Amino acid sequence: MTVPDCAFAPKSIAVVGASPNPDSRTTRNFLQPLLWSGCRARVYPVNPRAGEIMGLRAYPSITAIPELVDYVICGVPAAAVPAVARDCALGRARVLAIFSAGFSETGEEPGISLEREIVDIASRGGVRVIGPNCLGVHSPAAGVFLEIDIPPKSGQVSFLSQSGGYARQFIVAAAEREVFLNKLVSYGNAADLNEADFLEYFGADGGTATIAAYVEGVREPRRFLRALRQASAAKPVVIMKGGNTEAGRQATASHTASISGSRQAWAALCRQMGVMQAGDLDEMTDIIQAFELLRRPRGRRIGIVGIGGGVSVMAADDCENAGLVVPSFPAALRWELGSFTSIAGTSLRNPVDTSAEVYWDEAAFARTIDLVARWDGIDILFIILNAVATIRRGVDTLSRQGEAVVEAAGRTEKPVAIVIIAGGIEKAENMAVVVGRQCAKAGFPVFPSCSRAARATNQVIRYHEGRGTGLPSA
Amino acid sequence: MTVPDCAFAPKSIAVVGASPNPDSRTTRNFLQPLLWSGCRARVYPVNPRAGEIMGLRAYPSITAIPELVDYVICGVPAAAVPAVARDCALGRARVLAIFSAGFSETGEEPGISLEREIVDIASRGGVRVIGPNCLGVHSPAAGVFLEIDIPPKSGQVSFLSQSGGYARQFIVAAAEREVFLNKLVSYGNAADLNEADFLEYFGADGGTATIAAYVEGVREPRRFLRALRQASAAKPVVIMKGGNTEAGRQATASHTASISGSRQAWAALCRQMGVMQAGDLDEMTDIIQAFELLRRPRGRRIGIVGIGGGVSVMAADDCENAGLVVPSFPAALRWELGSFTSIAGTSLRNPVDTSAEVYWDEAAFARTIDLVARWDGIDILFIILNAVATIRRGVDTLSRQGEAVVEAAGRTEKPVAIVIIAGGIEKAENMAVVVGRQCAKAGFPVFPSCSRAARATNQVIRYHEGRGTGLPSA
Repeated sequence: MTVPDCAFAPKSIAVVGASPNPDSRTTRNFLQPLLWSGCRARVYPVNPRAGEIMGLRAYPSITAIPELVDYVICGVPAAAVPAVARDCALGRARVLAIFSAGFSETGEEPGISLEREIVDIASRGGVRVIGPNCLGVHSPAAGVFLEIDIPPKSGQVSFLSQSGGYARQFIVAAAEREVFLNKLVSYGNAADLNEADFLEYFGADGGTATIAAYVEGVREPRRFLRALRQASAAKPVVIMKGGNTEAGRQATASHTASISGSRQAWAALCRQMGVMQAGDLDEMTDIIQAFELLRRPRGRRIGIVGIGGGVSVMAADDCENAGLVVPSFPAALRWELGSFTSIAGTSLRNPVDTSAEVYWDEAAFARTIDLVARWDGIDILFIILNAVATIRRGVDTLSRQGEAVVEAAGRTEKPVAIVIIAGGIEKAENMAVVVGRQCAKAGFPVFPSCSRAARATNQVIRYHEGRGTGLPSA
Repeated sequence: MTVPDCAFAPKSIAVVGASPNPDSRTTRNFLQPLLWSGCRARVYPVNPRAGEIMGLRAYPSITAIPELVDYVICGVPAAAVPAVARDCALGRARVLAIFSAGFSETGEEPGISLEREIVDIASRGGVRVIGPNCLGVHSPAAGVFLEIDIPPKSGQVSFLSQSGGYARQFIVAAAEREVFLNKLVSYGNAADLNEADFLEYFGADGGTATIAAYVEGVREPRRFLRALRQASAAKPVVIMKGGNTEAGRQATASHTASISGSRQAWAALCRQMGVMQAGDLDEMTDIIQAFELLRRPRGRRIGIVGIGGGVSVMAADDCENAGLVVPSFPAALRWELGSFTSIAGTSLRNPVDTSAEVYWDEAAFARTIDLVARWDGIDILFIILNAVATIRRGVDTLSRQGEAVVEAAGRTEKPVAIVIIAGGIEKAENMAVVVGRQCAKAGFPVFPSCSRAARATNQVIRYHEGRGTGLPSA
């Protein structure tokens, strides 16, 4: 394993370039989250001109710190980084993550040579480098955070991201769906440790149940593909690939000096290895959420319960287009549903487009869900709540519906996903956020559209089918 | 023209089945919005048991109203509708929209026969029927509204929707992007007036610049296709088609008793006729917004300005995947941008992934936009604001950025679209809503992702290219 374990579980951390100004970038991005989280590691700000930073004693250099430092994050200007690397390499540090930019991503000298020089210095002293031009590590169990004001929880998803922006966005977006990171690394220019190293590490890591990756270029294609195959054989791997077009390739060169390949080649490789592809960060979050919160489906036959004729028609289309099967309900089930649901302007065939009377009566809506869940012709259940139609009734109504849905979902053992439609409409979106979180906290995956729910669910089903761990569908 | 003009410009309106209870469905859905909007038409509630409803004198029947009624909306139970149709047909009304359900969409008798009977009665008296199982007309210039608490403005988009839910959602979602309806009809089961009638009408209508449609089945395929061809030759037409899968077809039968065709056949037809397809209501809103608010592009070469390496890489991929061209900036422009932007960790090639220093300084960010807009190698400009990265700075910061972007966009004649990334994260989404509205009010289209902006923009470009009204790209 080439990634030292201490990178994700440091007992001592140095923040080089921290400053007493809390708004300075290095302090804000690294020191603040470490203090906010109450990190149990010993934290050493390094700044030759400061006596104390945020209540911690500051050290003039790495060499002045009274112990060997497990993890160094360095935010000084590019030209000053070789000196930091030299200090680390004097047996004073194990892993050096470099936030500083101005290296190979500039496409120019002296950045290119400077990057090579730093890696040379570090490796001669046995120090592994993350970056440069990166945010480094986020490892909640070790108290190492890149964001504040999120639940300080550790989960079982690990994310390797060439982009720092996507790394941070994923941390927060996932937390809002009750999905938490086990380990995350933003690895930028990948001058030393690269995507293959982290993929190997997460693939073999016992704390990592699911792997997400944002990758632009690949430094060692053979090693990377081998790591991908091994990781994917062991656990779900979802990859978002940047730079698959000519325009994107040019942009990756400027972003992380990466060289990336064609879209078709990637898609073929991923299919062959059972690796899931995400087209954007939303889709990545959807798929990861489905793996984390959706009970394992035993097949691809789906029952859909909601209100609204157009929404039901499109939901059926979306599910079938995503590869799910929407079987018609048998007469007996329709008869049971019809015993308390008007047939006027509704449908009781699947999707259930229920009546306004039933939809706005939580007990009757829950009874609908119970009846559908009980039918052995379906393997999965989607419940659609319509926040747009609830705007005039208010968030309390939607919240009561959410509660009823969650309770009904708790009475079945089948996997249940909840869709809350808000259509980009402010009031509806605000209500959907509140009730979405409520449903996620209760343990159910929540999606903003049936098509996103269906695509993510299909990935989970295909994953288990591909491994023979799912049952065949009808 | 088979749709009477008075359907969209009634001087007198009857609401049959209104009740003094403001929460009853017919009162809430129809009478309340008419009173809220200060509709200039004479409004007659019809209810045999009420003297007065919401301050208006109620009439026991259509025949008791002292004038010929232009537009009747009827919400009484299905079995009572034939009597209402009979009253209308006694020369007392011109157009009868039927909100009531319980007709052919039940797939059962007596609903099927009842629907036929109503249309027979009405046609013998020269009355045209909209629905049943629909919301009927929304026509802001005439004060006829289906929603309250939206700006009471008339626009130039007309929407024919087989679904009432999508009709209402579109009204509100479009208004939040400063896009307003000229005319809208929710036409449900289409027992008399159908999609071909409304498409013909909107195609020839001087007030309608752009047509949106949600269609499940088609009653008169030949007439519909002729209307589609004619409308599309005259103005942009965007269609969202429900029921294109086997599951969706079964659902449409229950929703509006429609018979719909295959996905491939539709796609081919649309391409051939220059009709745009939307996969969901979000995409429909995106495309319509682009036609309404984006200045007409002179080509497909795009300049992208934002912050974040991953976001820039994916933005370039998204644009190229959508058919846009992302040319590399020439050395002179890069040199100009580099005179005030660090090259460390940034890209000045296109997309511009600017530095934190420039991004958080509105004047410097605006200067970046100005320089890129001025380069004659691009036809369109996308500006990407990152609400996720702005969470800790707050909405005022994002709002100041929005203001700077809008001002810079006002200094160029090139089309500008604004992307605000919020990633489904509550705080970021809340900020994006506020600033998105601010940008839309200033006249610019706003999208939640670069891929949605790129796909909508490409539709606009293709539309003009197909008509020879756009210039060729480089």
